[in-house]
Amino acid sequence: MRFAKVAVVGVGLIGGSFALALKAARACGEVLGVGRGAANLELARSKGIVDAVGADIADADLILVATPVAQYPRVLAAIAPRLKPGALVTDAGSTKRDVVAAARAALGAKIAQFVPAHPVAGAERSGAAAASAELFRGKRVVLTPLPENADGAVQAVEEAWRACGARVGRMSAEEHDAVFAAVSHLPHLLAYALVHEVASRGNSAQLFGYAAGGFRDFTRIASSHPEMWRDICTANRDHLLVELDRYVAKLRAMRPLVEGGDGAALEKLFGAARAARQRWLSGDYE
Amino acid sequence: MRFAKVAVVGVGLIGGSFALALKAARACGEVLGVGRGAANLELARSKGIVDAVGADIADADLILVATPVAQYPRVLAAIAPRLKPGALVTDAGSTKRDVVAAARAALGAKIAQFVPAHPVAGAERSGAAAASAELFRGKRVVLTPLPENADGAVQAVEEAWRACGARVGRMSAEEHDAVFAAVSHLPHLLAYALVHEVASRGNSAQLFGYAAGGFRDFTRIASSHPEMWRDICTANRDHLLVELDRYVAKLRAMRPLVEGGDGAALEKLFGAARAARQRWLSGDYE
Repeated sequence: MRFAKVAVVGVGLIGGSFALALKAARACGEVLGVGRGAANLELARSKGIVDAVGADIADADLILVATPVAQYPRVLAAIAPRLKPGALVTDAGSTKRDVVAAARAALGAKIAQFVPAHPVAGAERSGAAAASAELFRGKRVVLTPLPENADGAVQAVEEAWRACGARVGRMSAEEHDAVFAAVSHLPHLLAYALVHEVASRGNSAQLFGYAAGGFRDFTRIASSHPEMWRDICTANRDHLLVELDRYVAKLRAMRPLVEGGDGAALEKLFGAARAARQRWLSGDYE
Repeated sequence: MRFAKVAVVGVGLIGGSFALALKAARACGEVLGVGRGAANLELARSKGIVDAVGADIADADLILVATPVAQYPRVLAAIAPRLKPGALVTDAGSTKRDVVAAARAALGAKIAQFVPAHPVAGAERSGAAAASAELFRGKRVVLTPLPENADGAVQAVEEAWRACGARVGRMSAEEHDAVFAAVSHLPHLLAYALVHEVASRGNSAQLFGYAAGGFRDFTRIASSHPEMWRDICTANRDHLLVELDRYVAKLRAMRPLVEGGDGAALEKLFGAARAARQRWLSGDYE
């Protein structure tokens, strides 16, 4: 058993699922739950997601920070003085450059003990009640190791995420933020924009009344948490702006095809997009 | 029984489901299947979707045209000389002004017998094999009646769609095309654009490799049929351009919020979009 004692700060969907998955894989001993929501923590304990509830992480061998990223400065500052030598910290934030900056500021000389991670998993549901040992099964987890991290530290954190069933990859925090601006952050912005646009029309009730399955799926991510996406969009604004500008340029390039009724060019573009998506769905990029 | 003999031209997902639903509701007698795909028609007959296969619609009391809209001029021209007095024609096209124009050109003096319809239902699957008596259950069907239609003709076609389980509404073809440009045609264009943009990048394999559930749902409609969406985008290009321009203006208005890191404004916009979507999902616009 690699980690005798694990602490999870923020026992929500992600933190709770991490605890359950490690337990199911027999990759940890005791799990300590840390957080501000007493009712949620008690639920986590009663469901066996965590074995104890408290704030003292001094004995922990592995700590997962799974709170909203906006709370990282406070959470990491609380962890820093208690973090024992050899213990490791990882996290679940959706952006990584800001997380690394917050960790450097809070952990100081202990920064080598922090191995940043982004589990690419989630759901509309939240809280410990939604946690599942299977949440990370087959999903991607991106590690963005720091120059200060020892190889063994990165490998140990990788093992923990692998024990959860995840497929673990590595890239720099910069690359991570660029990639996710394109395939996650921009689509969220686009979905919010469409729903907001429709809702702001004088005939919005009629428009929503005829919106169907295509609209529902396209806008599903516009039901995501506004605070979380506020933080992601501001933390990753430079890459998001690049993606937004490229996307608007794409739409402007497509506009004359629509205006001119260029069916052949539209069909070619639609067909190429469909074919690329089918390749993706068939697992060509796994 | 309202319609002793029904003819379905184009026995695919929509046409086949219409036949099955009318039969299940005991709202029709014999159903004749008409089309160019001999194997598909034979499958439809062997599955009991249609009772007979042929091209002679002279006895039909109700004809559904459920081919791609691009085939309407040919199909309606073939129907016109054989259409008996009192018989009615409806259709399943996703755009309505072009359909009305094609019907006027083909049916001439018999135009009063045509009651245009758009069943707002579909699926990625196609062909008679995918047909289901339940496809239209609870779904919207929009009728766009013509000035020439007698009230009784519109009511009879409405009854047929209601018998399929659909919720039937009415509006003008102009209004229909404006509404669906906003809630259906634009989202399809946007989804195709995003997938095409990602696919055209030098690092597209990496980008697709980290695309997850949000991207999958956002782009589901980019797996729609390129030919069908080529026709919709060209037929409805004026309304689609209006919607595209408004959407680009929306993105341009949001850009400074991202660039300036205006978290409060972003959170407000995201929250308003999320709340509007939740109202829609809860059935406030049914």
